[in-house]
Amino acid sequence: MISAHKVCRERLGWRINRMAEFGASADGGVNRQVFSDADRAARAELNSWATQMGLELYTDPIANQFFRLMPKGVAADMAPVLTGSHLDSQPTGGPYDGVYGVVAAFEAVQALIDCGAVLKRPIEIVAWSNEEGSRFAPGCMGSMCFTGARAIEEFADTCDADRLRLGDELSKTLLSHPAMQQRDFGQSLSSYIELHIEQGPILERLGKPIGVVSGIQGCRWFNVTINGEARHAGTTPMAQRRDALRAAVGYLSDLQIALQDPDDATRFTIGRLDVSPNTPNTVPQQVSFSIDLRHPDTEELNSLTERIHTVLSQQQQGCDAVCEEIFKHAAVRFHEWVIAAIQTCAKGLDLAYEPMVSGAFHDALFLADYCPTAMIFVPSQGGVSHHPSEFTHLTDLYDGARLLAATLEHTATSTVEIQASKRTENSTK
Amino acid sequence: MISAHKVCRERLGWRINRMAEFGASADGGVNRQVFSDADRAARAELNSWATQMGLELYTDPIANQFFRLMPKGVAADMAPVLTGSHLDSQPTGGPYDGVYGVVAAFEAVQALIDCGAVLKRPIEIVAWSNEEGSRFAPGCMGSMCFTGARAIEEFADTCDADRLRLGDELSKTLLSHPAMQQRDFGQSLSSYIELHIEQGPILERLGKPIGVVSGIQGCRWFNVTINGEARHAGTTPMAQRRDALRAAVGYLSDLQIALQDPDDATRFTIGRLDVSPNTPNTVPQQVSFSIDLRHPDTEELNSLTERIHTVLSQQQQGCDAVCEEIFKHAAVRFHEWVIAAIQTCAKGLDLAYEPMVSGAFHDALFLADYCPTAMIFVPSQGGVSHHPSEFTHLTDLYDGARLLAATLEHTATSTVEIQASKRTENSTK
Repeated sequence: MISAHKVCRERLGWRINRMAEFGASADGGVNRQVFSDADRAARAELNSWATQMGLELYTDPIANQFFRLMPKGVAADMAPVLTGSHLDSQPTGGPYDGVYGVVAAFEAVQALIDCGAVLKRPIEIVAWSNEEGSRFAPGCMGSMCFTGARAIEEFADTCDADRLRLGDELSKTLLSHPAMQQRDFGQSLSSYIELHIEQGPILERLGKPIGVVSGIQGCRWFNVTINGEARHAGTTPMAQRRDALRAAVGYLSDLQIALQDPDDATRFTIGRLDVSPNTPNTVPQQVSFSIDLRHPDTEELNSLTERIHTVLSQQQQGCDAVCEEIFKHAAVRFHEWVIAAIQTCAKGLDLAYEPMVSGAFHDALFLADYCPTAMIFVPSQGGVSHHPSEFTHLTDLYDGARLLAATLEHTATSTVEIQASKRTENSTK
Repeated sequence: MISAHKVCRERLGWRINRMAEFGASADGGVNRQVFSDADRAARAELNSWATQMGLELYTDPIANQFFRLMPKGVAADMAPVLTGSHLDSQPTGGPYDGVYGVVAAFEAVQALIDCGAVLKRPIEIVAWSNEEGSRFAPGCMGSMCFTGARAIEEFADTCDADRLRLGDELSKTLLSHPAMQQRDFGQSLSSYIELHIEQGPILERLGKPIGVVSGIQGCRWFNVTINGEARHAGTTPMAQRRDALRAAVGYLSDLQIALQDPDDATRFTIGRLDVSPNTPNTVPQQVSFSIDLRHPDTEELNSLTERIHTVLSQQQQGCDAVCEEIFKHAAVRFHEWVIAAIQTCAKGLDLAYEPMVSGAFHDALFLADYCPTAMIFVPSQGGVSHHPSEFTHLTDLYDGARLLAATLEHTATSTVEIQASKRTENSTK
């Protein structure tokens, strides 16, 4: 626990501000797309910090960055504790999403060095490539390749909006950091701990500085299409219409009722809805909309999905609905041993915490299948992220970094080997 | 009534097919935008027909075309009976909307000449410029300028999508037909009769060949905007959302209930609905939608509008709705004397007819303020128009033309002077 007291609040603030310079946008936000010039400059900054701290620098075929603290007297093949997050941002991102978990890891490792903690394992800091997936879809590419969930060959020919190939942009990035040692994917890990901003309003509402994250919600995405008939709005009697938008309103009303949840654990969002031909004086011919459904419990998620299909199997306004599932990921439960380690350290530091489930995806989703994993959240002001106004108070950033330092110290002084808990159902598409 | 027997079914079909060549699209439809090359070629075809028939050719400052049959022994200043419609089409139009009323007028006048009917008034055929308004908004420009509802100066600088000025394109059209005599707007008229396809499904469903149109529905257009808060779909509990699309579904459900009409005389259409930012995993921040509301009775239309405002004044999902009226036109009641003339002739020709109200706008909307006016409809297959598949059987086209010939004969052998019925409320915007 002694390392937590060596975390430097001012240096942490300086690190956050320094990283926000790479890809800074005029509105105070950050646009740092993976394998861009801004991303390469941010990566170089991390390399420079790591070199100054005496860490070992590694990279892998998808340019994930690893910075290893190798304690004296520890065997080189001892599985490390891994911590970190990602550097890339959304196009209209803020200065915290992702990069905070990397920056705080540097601050925590510096604190471990400064306090002279006697570690029994290496500690590695990671900056995963392309978590956001906003330049090259899908996201979590670095952690998927590392853990073997997907093969890098699948992504090499993926192009961005300017028709630049991922393979080419990746090569440019790898070549720009020749001092890093190349490693293969899939190194052994003792555990993985990811620190992140909450991106939701719960901690702020509760007035608690820490969220101990026990898992990630399951998620299913659907596209729904409703076909009606385009008709003249002035000449077609209501009784003779098959109005796709009236049908959609009926379906959406029924779905809202069918998915009501008194516990407020279900997340049900219609974020996209498109009308065709979308002119004021034509009865809508077609409506398509997305469904984003999430729940912390996979069985409940499946039961909610059944309710969706039941609602959509009814006709509305003489129209049928066609529902296609485009994405599915089972709920993830993090590892009790890592969760317990975080809780123990939070209590030791007298930090009030809330047990919670992550509503958003993170690289930890894929690490959870690979090694004992858990996450720590700090509050997001107004629950806002993916926006220039994304903000977390320095006090909260500091508390998160102190808890991370203590948890790394706790886990890296243990030589217990824990097995990752395997999920039974994997993601599709 | 003798003229009706001289209408030639085959020549009518030939005229329709001939006109469909001007602006013919590959899919069998017609794209004949006002003041385009195709429009000028179609106008030249009419001039050629009129010259062969011995009619007098006139035009006015907005290039409305008039073709006058001047019976022997009738004073030159005797107010004529006017009939016709428009040549321009929607971009994805069919071969009937508008042009049928002009073509049938030529066929009817030819029949009047052929039967040697003794007329007491001149008859004029009109092809109004720019009824559709799809190249240069707004529509009904020719009839609005003729009747003085709007001044041509307001439109001269209007540009199309290619930045071509209406004033320039209009001049090109006027110069291309030098044989036409120039007249001013606002000639005296005895009455106006417009023949048109129904553009709705009513006559086809009833199995009747003729609609005797007693007026045009009143219409009010609104834009509604609902402001919520953009939030992460995974991290934001349902209870803490202000979801603009959930709010919109609530408003639309309530509006559908509030505007239910057991008589099915109300037309209530949400044709356009836009969601922002419209991504699957973001709670919608803003929804805007159009309301197209029509009713044959202006008082009922105003009462329905009050109901809309009542529904929209309630909050939904913590969101407010802002409603802006962007267009308003009172219901139009056509002239009893002209309606009676059409009914008399339909009975005389043993044509079953349905009294009906037009759901769509027509140039007759503006003529109704100017002189005794009414319309005749023929069936539209499937109620479809503004589409290449727009279709009316030749038998129905023939019946419409016969009824028009008989009605022109009936009204042009009367010397009674009828006053136009003035509406109390005019269109805005």
